[in-house]
Amino acid sequence: MIVAGLDIGGTKTLAVIVGEHGDVLATTRLATQSGDPSIVVEHAVATLDALAEAAGIEVGHLAAVGVGLPGIVDTLRGEVRHAVNLGIDGLPAPLGRAVHDATGIPTIVVNDVDAAAVGAAALLGGSQPDLAYLSIGTGVAAGLVLDGRLRRGSSGAAGEIGHIVIDPTGPPCPCGQRGCLEALVSGPAIARRWPAPVGQPVATHLVSAAVAGDETATSVLAEVGGHLASAVQLLGLAFDPRRIVLGGGVVEAGEPLADAVRTALAARARTVPLLGELDLAERIVVLPSDAAPGATGAAMLARSGLDATAAAP
Amino acid sequence: MIVAGLDIGGTKTLAVIVGEHGDVLATTRLATQSGDPSIVVEHAVATLDALAEAAGIEVGHLAAVGVGLPGIVDTLRGEVRHAVNLGIDGLPAPLGRAVHDATGIPTIVVNDVDAAAVGAAALLGGSQPDLAYLSIGTGVAAGLVLDGRLRRGSSGAAGEIGHIVIDPTGPPCPCGQRGCLEALVSGPAIARRWPAPVGQPVATHLVSAAVAGDETATSVLAEVGGHLASAVQLLGLAFDPRRIVLGGGVVEAGEPLADAVRTALAARARTVPLLGELDLAERIVVLPSDAAPGATGAAMLARSGLDATAAAP
Repeated sequence: MIVAGLDIGGTKTLAVIVGEHGDVLATTRLATQSGDPSIVVEHAVATLDALAEAAGIEVGHLAAVGVGLPGIVDTLRGEVRHAVNLGIDGLPAPLGRAVHDATGIPTIVVNDVDAAAVGAAALLGGSQPDLAYLSIGTGVAAGLVLDGRLRRGSSGAAGEIGHIVIDPTGPPCPCGQRGCLEALVSGPAIARRWPAPVGQPVATHLVSAAVAGDETATSVLAEVGGHLASAVQLLGLAFDPRRIVLGGGVVEAGEPLADAVRTALAARARTVPLLGELDLAERIVVLPSDAAPGATGAAMLARSGLDATAAAP
Repeated sequence: MIVAGLDIGGTKTLAVIVGEHGDVLATTRLATQSGDPSIVVEHAVATLDALAEAAGIEVGHLAAVGVGLPGIVDTLRGEVRHAVNLGIDGLPAPLGRAVHDATGIPTIVVNDVDAAAVGAAALLGGSQPDLAYLSIGTGVAAGLVLDGRLRRGSSGAAGEIGHIVIDPTGPPCPCGQRGCLEALVSGPAIARRWPAPVGQPVATHLVSAAVAGDETATSVLAEVGGHLASAVQLLGLAFDPRRIVLGGGVVEAGEPLADAVRTALAARARTVPLLGELDLAERIVVLPSDAAPGATGAAMLARSGLDATAAAP
């Protein structure tokens, strides 16, 4: 039984076909087409066609499809709301049924960060995965696989840590608060501190400048590392996961960024005994740049459809 | 099969005997005797004697005993560390074995807040409990029953939210940080803002003064309610539990305190749509003042010994 997983982001879509034993058989990467729900459905169908062609199979041979999307995803109903970057507003868009109707393949829609957590757990291996996947991009949120099970929350909101306030005097956030994590460490938040040229990923640009010796960049990188360390500390104290995976667009800046986080955590561990005992710097994982945890996890959730909805209200 | 549960706090100990169907058959309340691990063991044994006498049974008729304690509890090894209020330091104290040796009864030691979460879940009923038990006393921490299972964390530290920093300019905490939740809403933190007469519970004294119309007390109560609302918001966004139970010594101040929390949450829900959707004020529960969730949960964990350790490292 082979299944497909799609990870539809604001700018790009990654898709994989996963085999019987969790092995990735084919991968496709496309620019995302979006604007309203029907365009997103057409895009998902076109992605499946491209993926099947890359794998040399018919789309109809796929046993199931998992579609990971940003926003509020109701997996049981197959509906998505508030996927702002895809042009989907507060009205529930029935994407699951629409993709199923267009392809004939059983389709499950899942939250992209939840899918990435499940995918990261599979990619890292081990018998009972236990991790938080911290996604840092346009938004900030965590996906949680605790004691081997995906934790989605009683209303699907578990892991929405981006809107926990960590500095009441911090910058304003579109959510209506000041100084929430997302207002301090998201891509747009970093861009306010380090305006990169248009079209260049801000964190990558910042890291390059810091590595090249720019003093302002070095100082902003340390500040970003400190805020990300606060996010890791929050996850560590709240969930105590065995691993904390850094993911999302900002983390594509690579090891120097992860090192800035580890440095900030190590400094805190020296002055706060509790944090020293937890040793959070040691728990941090960055996946290889060619890993596709979101698409892989979406495929795995499609396969184990019942598990994916077990925790839903 | 009847089992006993003890909840050994810094000043008082509550103990219950729980019957086959989770019904509480007997209750005992004693002043805690502590100072070093051997005194705590003697105290636990004396509490069991008093409890058995209250129930009209022999201690030997108990099938198992669960002992809930503050500090870092290693249930698998039966050891406790850092239970500062009981005179137990960083050296692991093998209390589980010591109580077993003294009584002959299978004994499990558990973290008191974890036990309270399990007990609250049982007291509230329902088929698949899903809650965070927020304990606000000398310390601040949460116990978590998620999708029906106790979440202890990969190193037993899950729910240690008291040391998440929510205001970097806030008051110093003994942990080494500034402005962590515990430095803002614990009993001692409230006492710094509202010094109550010696021997009077600070939150109860504050609430009485506010109810009597004292303007300073009213303003401090609103401030405390705001900080507690931040703790509830943190739990809501991180875990998205169906219910959030307010517990611990501070909450013995009663409904006016819980109302101050609900008022602060309702104000935020009006200006932050995400918080409006989560409706956290509606999730808040305060147990009746005669409920003993910690002792009840310790007894239940003693009965299902395997479940209690399933999530341990």
